[in-house]
Amino acid sequence: MDAFTRDYPIQVEIPVAWGEMDALQHVNNAVYFRYFETARLHFFDRLDLMAQLQQRGIAPVLSETRARFRRPVTYPDRLSVGARIATLGEDRFTMTYGVFSHRQQTLATLGEAEVVMVAIDRGRKTVIPDAIRAVLAGQLAEAVV
Amino acid sequence: MDAFTRDYPIQVEIPVAWGEMDALQHVNNAVYFRYFETARLHFFDRLDLMAQLQQRGIAPVLSETRARFRRPVTYPDRLSVGARIATLGEDRFTMTYGVFSHRQQTLATLGEAEVVMVAIDRGRKTVIPDAIRAVLAGQLAEAVV
Amino acid sequence: MDAFTRDYPIQVEIPVAWGEMDALQHVNNAVYFRYFETARLHFFDRLDLMAQLQQRGIAPVLSETRARFRRPVTYPDRLSVGARIATLGEDRFTMTYGVFSHRQQTLATLGEAEVVMVAIDRGRKTVIPDAIRAVLAGQLAEAVV
Amino acid sequence: MDAFTRDYPIQVEIPVAWGEMDALQHVNNAVYFRYFETARLHFFDRLDLMAQLQQRGIAPVLSETRARFRRPVTYPDRLSVGARIATLGEDRFTMTYGVFSHRQQTLATLGEAEVVMVAIDRGRKTVIPDAIRAVLAGQLAEAVV
Repeated sequence: MDAFTRDYPIQVEIPVAWGEMDALQHVNNAVYFRYFETARLHFFDRLDLMAQLQQRGIAPVLSETRARFRRPVTYPDRLSVGARIATLGEDRFTMTYGVFSHRQQTLATLGEAEVVMVAIDRGRKTVIPDAIRAVLAGQLAEAVV
Repeated sequence: MDAFTRDYPIQVEIPVAWGEMDALQHVNNAVYFRYFETARLHFFDRLDLMAQLQQRGIAPVLSETRARFRRPVTYPDRLSVGARIATLGEDRFTMTYGVFSHRQQTLATLGEAEVVMVAIDRGRKTVIPDAIRAVLAGQLAEAVV
Repeated sequence: MDAFTRDYPIQVEIPVAWGEMDALQHVNNAVYFRYFETARLHFFDRLDLMAQLQQRGIAPVLSETRARFRRPVTYPDRLSVGARIATLGEDRFTMTYGVFSHRQQTLATLGEAEVVMVAIDRGRKTVIPDAIRAVLAGQLAEAVV
Repeated sequence: MDAFTRDYPIQVEIPVAWGEMDALQHVNNAVYFRYFETARLHFFDRLDLMAQLQQRGIAPVLSETRARFRRPVTYPDRLSVGARIATLGEDRFTMTYGVFSHRQQTLATLGEAEVVMVAIDRGRKTVIPDAIRAVLAGQLAEAVV
């Protein structure tokens, strides 16, 4: 857990719901994308990004997302889901997510998402404003070997 | 199925998704409320009620809902979910739902919902407009003994 | 919250996920039944009932459930969801659920479920074993006027 | 649609549920992984693969999955979700998914999944049996330029 917290300073804790398991009796694959979404929102919230984006008429739009499953998760368990910035582009950035199982004391799932900045009025991609870029850059993780 | 169609002239067909089953390997109880919602929206749509309500600044708000489970449903199956009007009040009405399993050829689940008319600007209950009441009255089912 | 805790001594805390909101921008009605399920499992777990039931070859089966919505809930919020026993029958019992919103500091939703004891080998209803009845009776709430 | 059917001969039709939309009023990203799962199961079913795998004591396990979002989808709509084989390895294969929106008459979302063969008794990866490999090879799609 310590190494996980070093890798993901911004985390949110999520209790596994029994009903998130599917007929194979572990958490269903689609549910992890709900967890990533929760971690993404928590990340934006902690860095106060949503208010800044709204003020500039920019919406962060999910263009791509993926998950890599290492260990199945079952109820009951508590998960710590961390988010960080992996790459910063002109008009987009990528985040990575880590799902740490408290019961198994291991990283159960890894995730990734690409988020594109869209100017709401024109409905078109727009560059990441400098102030927001600076905040995101502060959460850039060094490569995990 | 014929008797079901007599009871519920307005129906929507829904394929069961494998992922809607839970760890007990049948469709999870919460999923039926998603099915009822789909049937409710389909009912409003078929009777062209949403447009009429919006035009009058009224939102139909769910105040209560219930389900009675008769038979577990499993994947693969197709469901016909019917909706009708059970009671018509001053500012509210109740709907009943029936979930018919094609594989089992039987009524698997029964549902009910109370819908209250809310004037969007004032945020308060309001009477059902006469034109809408007339449409709903046309879908009132006689009591099922 | 104090009154809520008096009414529901057994509670579980659930963070609202952003993705649990629907297009009307509050928590979708079906999600509350997931919350009730989580509270029900937590209740069974806290009273060590699941192990006792399994040992006797009995499965608790949900035969009916309902919700009454008092206040819409939105993200972000934390919910305390309490469960207690309302009635105890020969082969079934009813539970009531309360969903307390931390942000609104009020009871947002009320729920109810009927749970039937089923002998797994025969697939038929069976009486509640005395030891389990005694535990459930300890969680019987006096009527809320 | 014709080009889509050429690319994905095996398809399943899924009606969009209103409740699958999130607070941004389009289908939530996690829901697409439910759609992919439905298409995957349908693909296995159509090629009669599940029975053959079970008979050999092999479980197909999802190790990785991703989605690329091109167009938001909203209720009401019907989707055709196609699945095909992209690559065949020793003990794994990758599938690609296409989600075609009937209302927009366009490919809304693309998906991918890696599926690993696991010998259930030993809990370890195992090679794809020849008979199954032959069936999968018949669904290999040429590269889409």
